[in-house]
Amino acid sequence: MSQPEYQSISPSDFFYRNREIAGFSNPSRATYTAVRELIENSLDACEARLTPPDIFLRISEVEDQKDTETKIYILRVEDNGTGLPAEHIPKAFAQVFYGSKYELKQARGTFGLGVTMAILYGQISTDNPIIVHSKTAGSKGVKYRLLVDVENNRPIVEHFEELNRSEDGTTVTVTLKGDLKRAQERIMEYLKLSTISTPSASIRLSISGDVVMDFGGYSDTIPAPVKISLPHPRAADLELLRRLVQRNGTKALHDFLCESFQKVGPKTASKFVQFMNMDSRKRVGEMEREDLASLGTALRNYDGFERPDSSCLSPIGKQEFIHSIATQFNTSLTHYSMRGPCEWQGHPFIVEAVLATGDEFPRSDTPSLYRFANRVPLLYDSNDGILMRVMKRTRWARYNMHTSVPVALFVHVCSTRIPFNAAGKQSIASVHEIENELQLLFKELGRKLSNMTSKVQASAREAKKMREFSRLFRQIVRFSASLAEHEEVPSTEKLVQTLFEVDSDA
Amino acid sequence: MSQPEYQSISPSDFFYRNREIAGFSNPSRATYTAVRELIENSLDACEARLTPPDIFLRISEVEDQKDTETKIYILRVEDNGTGLPAEHIPKAFAQVFYGSKYELKQARGTFGLGVTMAILYGQISTDNPIIVHSKTAGSKGVKYRLLVDVENNRPIVEHFEELNRSEDGTTVTVTLKGDLKRAQERIMEYLKLSTISTPSASIRLSISGDVVMDFGGYSDTIPAPVKISLPHPRAADLELLRRLVQRNGTKALHDFLCESFQKVGPKTASKFVQFMNMDSRKRVGEMEREDLASLGTALRNYDGFERPDSSCLSPIGKQEFIHSIATQFNTSLTHYSMRGPCEWQGHPFIVEAVLATGDEFPRSDTPSLYRFANRVPLLYDSNDGILMRVMKRTRWARYNMHTSVPVALFVHVCSTRIPFNAAGKQSIASVHEIENELQLLFKELGRKLSNMTSKVQASAREAKKMREFSRLFRQIVRFSASLAEHEEVPSTEKLVQTLFEVDSDA
Repeated sequence: MSQPEYQSISPSDFFYRNREIAGFSNPSRATYTAVRELIENSLDACEARLTPPDIFLRISEVEDQKDTETKIYILRVEDNGTGLPAEHIPKAFAQVFYGSKYELKQARGTFGLGVTMAILYGQISTDNPIIVHSKTAGSKGVKYRLLVDVENNRPIVEHFEELNRSEDGTTVTVTLKGDLKRAQERIMEYLKLSTISTPSASIRLSISGDVVMDFGGYSDTIPAPVKISLPHPRAADLELLRRLVQRNGTKALHDFLCESFQKVGPKTASKFVQFMNMDSRKRVGEMEREDLASLGTALRNYDGFERPDSSCLSPIGKQEFIHSIATQFNTSLTHYSMRGPCEWQGHPFIVEAVLATGDEFPRSDTPSLYRFANRVPLLYDSNDGILMRVMKRTRWARYNMHTSVPVALFVHVCSTRIPFNAAGKQSIASVHEIENELQLLFKELGRKLSNMTSKVQASAREAKKMREFSRLFRQIVRFSASLAEHEEVPSTEKLVQTLFEVDSDA
Repeated sequence: MSQPEYQSISPSDFFYRNREIAGFSNPSRATYTAVRELIENSLDACEARLTPPDIFLRISEVEDQKDTETKIYILRVEDNGTGLPAEHIPKAFAQVFYGSKYELKQARGTFGLGVTMAILYGQISTDNPIIVHSKTAGSKGVKYRLLVDVENNRPIVEHFEELNRSEDGTTVTVTLKGDLKRAQERIMEYLKLSTISTPSASIRLSISGDVVMDFGGYSDTIPAPVKISLPHPRAADLELLRRLVQRNGTKALHDFLCESFQKVGPKTASKFVQFMNMDSRKRVGEMEREDLASLGTALRNYDGFERPDSSCLSPIGKQEFIHSIATQFNTSLTHYSMRGPCEWQGHPFIVEAVLATGDEFPRSDTPSLYRFANRVPLLYDSNDGILMRVMKRTRWARYNMHTSVPVALFVHVCSTRIPFNAAGKQSIASVHEIENELQLLFKELGRKLSNMTSKVQASAREAKKMREFSRLFRQIVRFSASLAEHEEVPSTEKLVQTLFEVDSDA
């Protein structure tokens, strides 16, 4: 009956205790997640530099280990990205919830958690620090050896030196206990799919010194840089509103609205304030809490605002998506569809997908699903995410899908905020707005497939009819020729073809 | 090419931005999660008081709202638990990662996150503070109105007063935007299953002032209080070891081991130190980092330690588990099995399950699965968790399972640490040790089912044979009797029964 002890723990400590939440549940999954987080970071850094990503992932075993399933590995990821300013390196790598991606734009990583988790996992499983060697434009380059102070969520700098590096970019080396044997296939799949969603990226994988495979380099075009956007008024929950008022409290309501939100110009602001029946010159800093609350409600519910700006988004695009899929898989037919920009709670999003047929895909009565979120392939935990759920709910049989034609569905959701189910970022939570658009997208693709299949089938029927007719006609012509005592049987082919107007190859 | 802005965000801010991770992905799920977190907290508080939980959950709509799907609701949960000491209430409710359950024992909530998330969600969706009214033994009672300072992860006390309360316990009132219509069924299911895993609990649900249902009260026995345990040596990763050394640095290695870990007595410690080839009198605070690292590795790999202590665990138990299932469902046959205490990374765990047949369960070729972790029913995200995965992997057909007999499988995992997949605590991550035990447990239950079914079938066959023989024998006897001109035909029943030794009812 005694009262228990109360204590506060740091976010590092929380994720140290619950590393499964961040995708580090067992040695093979941890190996996969560490690779994924490092590659994700590198791709973001390269795109920020507007440079085709050129990434080299090296995995090697530490020597002289017992031959067990879990071993100590060194992961080394080298990129040609922007590099990190020396002063930010310790926190960016070794402090949970510290990062540069908390702004409103599409990015692969947005949590400020992933790479730090990889370090933390390495540290607790092997006691090794991480090594970061980075160079930004105009600087010489620096090298750090870092650990995480878990109880205080602070970086520990074990070593620092200025160390020249010829090119801009970052090299990160993590030592961790993993299971490469079990993880390797997934890692290869991850790299392959990463270059489908980022066709300009080249990634080289070497294991124990041998180049295992080169991925990507399907395009020289770098996606246009995404813009950082202001929040949309429909994202104005009371927390956001309070923060904006804190920053802009001296502004009159009308100007406050124009300057704090996207899609609110002077005209829209005036209309909205009129609709609210409020004084447009009132300073927001002086508004009562209740007024602020009703302002928030009104902002979220007013239907006079335009859709959110999508210049902060970077979909893969029809050409690139189809091209990179076709390069990796032996596809025969491909269809692309996209929907959006739409919006969930003020966050813009786009869904795009390619439906492809090809002999490499498994035969099934539903398409094989390949999932991407903000250009990151999702390989785990598919079953509880909305992408799989909506795919399964779609009645593919209606669209003439048969086990005879292997079909795959590649689907990409991009948004300023992806509602992931877990910090391991493997599946998308059930958000109605996104679910609805996916449903419509998949139906659209289904209809395209159906049209196409029925055309193929109709054409096959016509061709069969023609062959049959042609055979009979030929017999009649031959018979007529022999009746008329002609020696030469006239050709019938052209005639038949004109009659049916179909390609006899079909 | 300009460098982006770096910033650090608080854990509250992280979960404000990513509330889906904690189970608040949409209004109906948020309603469910808020109820669940409050009930979980109450059940833990009651068990700490060694009192049968008596909980009253009231849900009511705020008046005068438009008739839309999402509405503003007031959730009020009243319990007879220990109550919280006044000084801890603000942080315990309105600060993320603050709590009393970071100790090594089985508890429903261990994250220090859930209830704060419910408050945070209420606050950003309705701008309303939470109201807490609590009384501990010996105090009068206090009442708080609280908000979360999201940017700084600190409680904001809006109001405080001493307010008498007749009984010990806590009442929490949260106002939030939700969707009760969609959530109600799940909430009822959650309460029903909660009283199966906590048979001593009585929970009353009222909606808009009307009592909708009373759940539970199946047992007067309160589970024995669980003990707080020391960590097991196999849980000694380097972070834990570093902390223990910090606390106990002046100790000699031998004594340090005995005092820091469970299952390490003087004998075991001596043996281990000998095995390590280290000086048992060396002060741990003076050990080199490398020595500490090899100590950690040795602790994790040495096989001379006993299994972890399970007195910090509280399985439901055969009697109680079967009884509460039978009270709630119309079961005909039930089998109980349990395995453990076993261990994953030094954390003890027990798996127990009941396989039940009964007409209420759906007919299928696999059992309907009911999942529990540390006595909490898990209702969402079943498909990516190991419970469902192992259930599906089990070859039930081998064990004579047919669609003709509806079967349900109730399975409970309890541990000092449940490796959840996400902070929403809905499914268990893939941890090999737990997976293996589940597999063996399900097989065991399968065999029991199979034995039972084959016995029933064998007995049915025997019975049929007997009826047949009995009919023929009776004819022969009758014929013989008429041949012998007997008027009375002798009874054959007893004779046949002795011959077959089966119950003729089968």
